Amino acid sequence: MSETAGAGKALFIQEVGPRDGFQIEARFIPTADKIALIDALGTCGLAKIEVTSFTSPKAIPALADADEVMHGIRRQPGVVYTALVPNLRGAERAIAAGTDELNLVMSASETHNLLNLRMTREQSVGRLQEVVDLALGAGVALNVSLSTAFGCPMEGEVARNTVLGLAETFLARGVRGITLCDTTGMAHPRQVGGLSAAFRSRFPDAELTLHLHNTRGMGLANALAALGAGVVRFDASLGGLGGCPYAPGATGNVCTEDLVHMLQAMGHAVAVDLEGLLAAARTLPALVGHDVPGQVLHAGASQDLHPIPEDLETIRTRARG
Amino acid sequence: MSETAGAGKALFIQEVGPRDGFQIEARFIPTADKIALIDALGTCGLAKIEVTSFTSPKAIPALADADEVMHGIRRQPGVVYTALVPNLRGAERAIAAGTDELNLVMSASETHNLLNLRMTREQSVGRLQEVVDLALGAGVALNVSLSTAFGCPMEGEVARNTVLGLAETFLARGVRGITLCDTTGMAHPRQVGGLSAAFRSRFPDAELTLHLHNTRGMGLANALAALGAGVVRFDASLGGLGGCPYAPGATGNVCTEDLVHMLQAMGHAVAVDLEGLLAAARTLPALVGHDVPGQVLHAGASQDLHPIPEDLETIRTRARG
Repeated sequence: MSETAGAGKALFIQEVGPRDGFQIEARFIPTADKIALIDALGTCGLAKIEVTSFTSPKAIPALADADEVMHGIRRQPGVVYTALVPNLRGAERAIAAGTDELNLVMSASETHNLLNLRMTREQSVGRLQEVVDLALGAGVALNVSLSTAFGCPMEGEVARNTVLGLAETFLARGVRGITLCDTTGMAHPRQVGGLSAAFRSRFPDAELTLHLHNTRGMGLANALAALGAGVVRFDASLGGLGGCPYAPGATGNVCTEDLVHMLQAMGHAVAVDLEGLLAAARTLPALVGHDVPGQVLHAGASQDLHPIPEDLETIRTRARG
Repeated sequence: MSETAGAGKALFIQEVGPRDGFQIEARFIPTADKIALIDALGTCGLAKIEVTSFTSPKAIPALADADEVMHGIRRQPGVVYTALVPNLRGAERAIAAGTDELNLVMSASETHNLLNLRMTREQSVGRLQEVVDLALGAGVALNVSLSTAFGCPMEGEVARNTVLGLAETFLARGVRGITLCDTTGMAHPRQVGGLSAAFRSRFPDAELTLHLHNTRGMGLANALAALGAGVVRFDASLGGLGGCPYAPGATGNVCTEDLVHMLQAMGHAVAVDLEGLLAAARTLPALVGHDVPGQVLHAGASQDLHPIPEDLETIRTRARG
């Protein structure tokens, strides 16, 4: 498969910063600021925005305002407003708030699931199936995010069949989309290409999303490999917000504007307003109280040329003398 | 071409940090520290190390000790010790110091050449040909680095034929290697794949190196694209040292240990000691007086697993209850 395999096909960029980024910020982002950022992102041509997480305010105080945020945003036609939902209670809240899609989550690795969700994978599957039934009954779309699909920081590599088996369980139950998450940035391009291709061949009708991190610098290389395997949906986080709990100081999610910048430079069909994204990203340092890792934000887009700082004719004349 | 096209072929990693990185550092790195770092790198399995630049000490005070450094290092068999050489005077110094290879440089874009080298490209070609003749007479190997081969920050895209034409001029004269430099990080993977393939098809016997920057986050994605086009030689900079004069604060060269980490994770034949590189990279912040952008340095290698922080059986028991 070549990196041009996806050329021409529309690509879908899904923003996760307001959930995956903000949830680990030490500073509470005021509800009005969250809503303003999501509203700004809503006009940029993104396919999906993960607005918040309907989890217990005790578990994630940073997103304690999930209901107000979901109620407060201005919905743009064509944008799917999704939210992370850990359990039945969260699903009820999310549906009541008018969430377009519920994003359920569990880990592909047993150790990570036990540590992160405090239950076995089998128990998670059971609990999430209750949520699936509730959402399907309410006519709300569903996505399941499989954490550590490309490796667990405690267990190492996770068997491909484990990942595909979990995907099958949920797809068979009526879930529309599956997200393969490189939760701690362990994936490498060959692995991403291989698992993506295997997934697409086994589940050609499923909506597959790749959720990549840039922890070890491979974020965009992994996106390129996924693209080569025909993947068209990518999660990304404005400014590269987000992180890796096992690598403090490491960079987080693949950066939305860096991903869009690369894809558009390559000529891919990405109907996202890069300038709009950059304008929104520029507001982040003041919101979160620290610089963000996004690189196009610091360097500018590659097509933005610089003025010539000196008179070239003078240089030519001197060079001749 | 697929990203597995290069699988099995040995890949060559060429360290440029002591030249391309140190030359822009505000703090003068003591000569003994430069030598110690290069000696540490010499045992890591790198194919080539760019030791210094034999330029005027007035032009680049950071590398004013070029002669002492080249004389002082301990040569490892199998490692090519190269140096940047701007002109005939520099070539004489480099040859006198026992440099294995002279790396000449000019820009593919006229504007960048005028601003950076204070002469036209035509004048540069003429001057460098004098250096080529001198080196060939002395039996010293030659490489020519073409700056802005993937775009000029003032002119924008540089025509492929301009780049290949310059390469042809030097190859015809007896130069062994050509380096295509993405000087300010403007390259994107499709462009890198395309130019690399065109170069290899036109000059199958030339030793082609890709010199990539990570200014806009695409460094490793571009390496992946080059690999897919059959490129086997990559410049990289320990810790990601180096920079882009047009984007202050932006990251610099592709980071050596991040590149090696990705290639080895993918199963490529890269006979480089990652642990040794990381040990050397850990000394950089103290040497240069600031943190460095290398990401594996911050996050650890993906295969280095973390201990399980809690008793899983206790979690299982509680989850059952």
